[in-house]
Amino acid sequence: MNAVEQVRPEPEAAAARPRFLRQLQQLVAFASISTEPQHAGAVRACAAWLAQHLRSVGLDGVRVYVTPRHPVVYAEKLVSPAHPTLLIYGHYDVQPVDPAAAWTVPPFGGLVRGDRLYGRGASDDKGQFFTHLKALEILLQAGSPLSLNVKVLLEGEEEIGSPNLGAFIRRHRRQLRADWAVLSDTNMRSAQQPALTYGLRGSLSAELAVQGPKAELHSGIFGGAVLNPLQALSEILAQLHDPAGRIAIPGFYDAVRPAPAAERAYLRRTGPSDAQLLREAQAEQGWGEAGYSLYERTVLRPSLSITGLSGGYQGVGIQAIIPPQASAKLSFRLAPGQDPLVVEQQLRRYLAQLTPPQVQATLTTQLRARPYAVAPQHPAMQAAARAYAVGFGRAPVWQRSGGTISVVTLFEEELGIPTVLMGFGLPADHKHGPDEFLHLPNFWRGIQTSLAFMRELGQMGVGQLAENE
Amino acid sequence: MNAVEQVRPEPEAAAARPRFLRQLQQLVAFASISTEPQHAGAVRACAAWLAQHLRSVGLDGVRVYVTPRHPVVYAEKLVSPAHPTLLIYGHYDVQPVDPAAAWTVPPFGGLVRGDRLYGRGASDDKGQFFTHLKALEILLQAGSPLSLNVKVLLEGEEEIGSPNLGAFIRRHRRQLRADWAVLSDTNMRSAQQPALTYGLRGSLSAELAVQGPKAELHSGIFGGAVLNPLQALSEILAQLHDPAGRIAIPGFYDAVRPAPAAERAYLRRTGPSDAQLLREAQAEQGWGEAGYSLYERTVLRPSLSITGLSGGYQGVGIQAIIPPQASAKLSFRLAPGQDPLVVEQQLRRYLAQLTPPQVQATLTTQLRARPYAVAPQHPAMQAAARAYAVGFGRAPVWQRSGGTISVVTLFEEELGIPTVLMGFGLPADHKHGPDEFLHLPNFWRGIQTSLAFMRELGQMGVGQLAENE
Repeated sequence: MNAVEQVRPEPEAAAARPRFLRQLQQLVAFASISTEPQHAGAVRACAAWLAQHLRSVGLDGVRVYVTPRHPVVYAEKLVSPAHPTLLIYGHYDVQPVDPAAAWTVPPFGGLVRGDRLYGRGASDDKGQFFTHLKALEILLQAGSPLSLNVKVLLEGEEEIGSPNLGAFIRRHRRQLRADWAVLSDTNMRSAQQPALTYGLRGSLSAELAVQGPKAELHSGIFGGAVLNPLQALSEILAQLHDPAGRIAIPGFYDAVRPAPAAERAYLRRTGPSDAQLLREAQAEQGWGEAGYSLYERTVLRPSLSITGLSGGYQGVGIQAIIPPQASAKLSFRLAPGQDPLVVEQQLRRYLAQLTPPQVQATLTTQLRARPYAVAPQHPAMQAAARAYAVGFGRAPVWQRSGGTISVVTLFEEELGIPTVLMGFGLPADHKHGPDEFLHLPNFWRGIQTSLAFMRELGQMGVGQLAENE
Repeated sequence: MNAVEQVRPEPEAAAARPRFLRQLQQLVAFASISTEPQHAGAVRACAAWLAQHLRSVGLDGVRVYVTPRHPVVYAEKLVSPAHPTLLIYGHYDVQPVDPAAAWTVPPFGGLVRGDRLYGRGASDDKGQFFTHLKALEILLQAGSPLSLNVKVLLEGEEEIGSPNLGAFIRRHRRQLRADWAVLSDTNMRSAQQPALTYGLRGSLSAELAVQGPKAELHSGIFGGAVLNPLQALSEILAQLHDPAGRIAIPGFYDAVRPAPAAERAYLRRTGPSDAQLLREAQAEQGWGEAGYSLYERTVLRPSLSITGLSGGYQGVGIQAIIPPQASAKLSFRLAPGQDPLVVEQQLRRYLAQLTPPQVQATLTTQLRARPYAVAPQHPAMQAAARAYAVGFGRAPVWQRSGGTISVVTLFEEELGIPTVLMGFGLPADHKHGPDEFLHLPNFWRGIQTSLAFMRELGQMGVGQLAENE
């Protein structure tokens, strides 16, 4: 893949740093947890703060759109139809803080210690998308005319699978029309080594509930004569993987597209080794499908994680019961070639086969997203690579991520545009876990990278926008 | 087994009924949940109330003994060393109310509606042991001299496996010396059909924790490369039963003593049919070990119930994590011949074999109790049968129960005495479940039965106490 020359970062607006940091702390202070209904007010307040902030940055047409759940915030700076258009996407909602007791800092305190700004959402995604707003502020306040139209779309439902974004994009297709999107919600390899993500796994999230007896039963009186739904659930879950660690759903791997040998060789050469990946996971031993490195298992191969398990007595000590029901949350990550709808059908057929006649199993789908990829050779990706070289003084490596960003497939399907995944997160910054933090040097360099990226794009004629146009 | 003549119940102290009911409502109002540390104060208050009540009934030597956890309440009425001695045991602690939302009445309101007194512990065990206190009150206040010594032992830790009762009994062996114990914490067949329980299953309760990665991991970034402890736990649990519903722990059934053909024939003839048992369980289909009726599976055969399962994200919606740990609560019920210590060793060996190298499994034992049986031919059991005929106008059937009452084996081992399991509960009274209730006619008839039982015992010379003495 392309070598990019090392470029010295241009001097940044150093004087603005304390102000930028204070603003980011304010943004991180909103407990905008989208999945928990009791935090809906904090999500709304965060959207209102962002709208006000976008106005103060100098953007036009700022608006907060109500959706059936959490609002979408929109803003734009339209210079000329002759210039190309960049759509900047970010999400201001965050993951829950569970387990809250495992945090050693307040999750919404915006505490800065050394190089780190701590807080839920500091890296995922508030700190990352904020780089683009600050780059825009620098550009707009410098008074130098942009040769790029910019649209900003900030979502409040990413962590729950963007249930209303598809409808929003379809309704505002014309308004959102752009040549490329940029989205900063992926990881660099390390603080020294930027990385451009050109592939994402898809997703299928669903909750499996198993219903047994109508009410709790005494486990002494009825144990051995009535099927326990916790046992039935465990036995169903155990049959979702085979003893070799492969997913055991019939037909599950049929559509998986094998990666070309050259791509596997590149990923092997540039990607994290098994030892590195285990260090990042703080795990001693790897696990999974034979024939693939740990990194390949997380980016080229599908996976199934049980993300939650619940049923029966949850307190201290013992309660002698057969509980009436049990449930598990399932999260599939889908490899190139897989379709979440097909996987869901395969899963439903398999569950029907696995469920014993004494209990009822119900599967409720929560999220479906297709896998995604954009070629590293795409001009916008090449522009991003050059921008990283400016911001970080080093060419990025190309990588696949095992995560899912469903909006990327929406942009592809509804707007017909590719998304540049210009991530500033770190593998060990505890996204989704306790003590999440943003590595602040990445924030400052991220702003420089975004500045360079917008300048690169502005220099591209509309004719050069995409490789194959 | 012995036929007992039908006897007309003697006229009861009808005038005392409203007072007895009010007292029982007060007793049920204590939220004496022994397993939940936040209820320790309610357990203590209940013990103090009982001590005061025993004094008012006319008993001597009333004392509340502090233990490392919940108090023991003791009282006695010693008439003469020439008379035999009955030890009355009850437990004033209760199960948790989880799931609290499933209750349609206040769990500690003592609500009376029709024939039912509702409340956690109304049947298990407050309403049942209270029959003996009220029978004692009638006897003592009638002024007729008792020809029986009586000792009363009320425990506050039965629902957590009586962790301190063994030490208490050993320390007070002389004080507790008796010829028989009586314990009312089992079921009748129905409100019309009393039953005497001559066998109980043993118990082994333990918590299995599976530890995986040190902290929560993003299921997109690491899914497929790190073993998920929820998956590992499910796979371990699934291997505790074989596909035919038998417990798969090697050697588990080796010590189980098969029931004699005559006993199986009696239980088949007098015990609940599969259809009755399913009606009581509100279940449509049975489950379990082939070759045994549902009733036999619950009383002659061992069982394993998963009573609680927990791990990962427990909230609404989705959280994309691989959680660091998962746990399951296991409740074994042991059949005649089995030893909980041996089963525990077999389980530990099997778990060591089942646990994949990427996770650590820890088993914490919470309760061990041996199976128990006393022959229906025992004179005290025959006396109890005659007493039921007085109280309920009908001879009891002999039955085994699938439950566990660990104090019974303590009385056998430490005091060398048998226990008469004189139950007044009903199969459908929701012990351990929401809306637990006491069937009040059983309370009134239970008092009559206890009265008749104490008179029967008083008429027995010390030489006739036990069949084989």
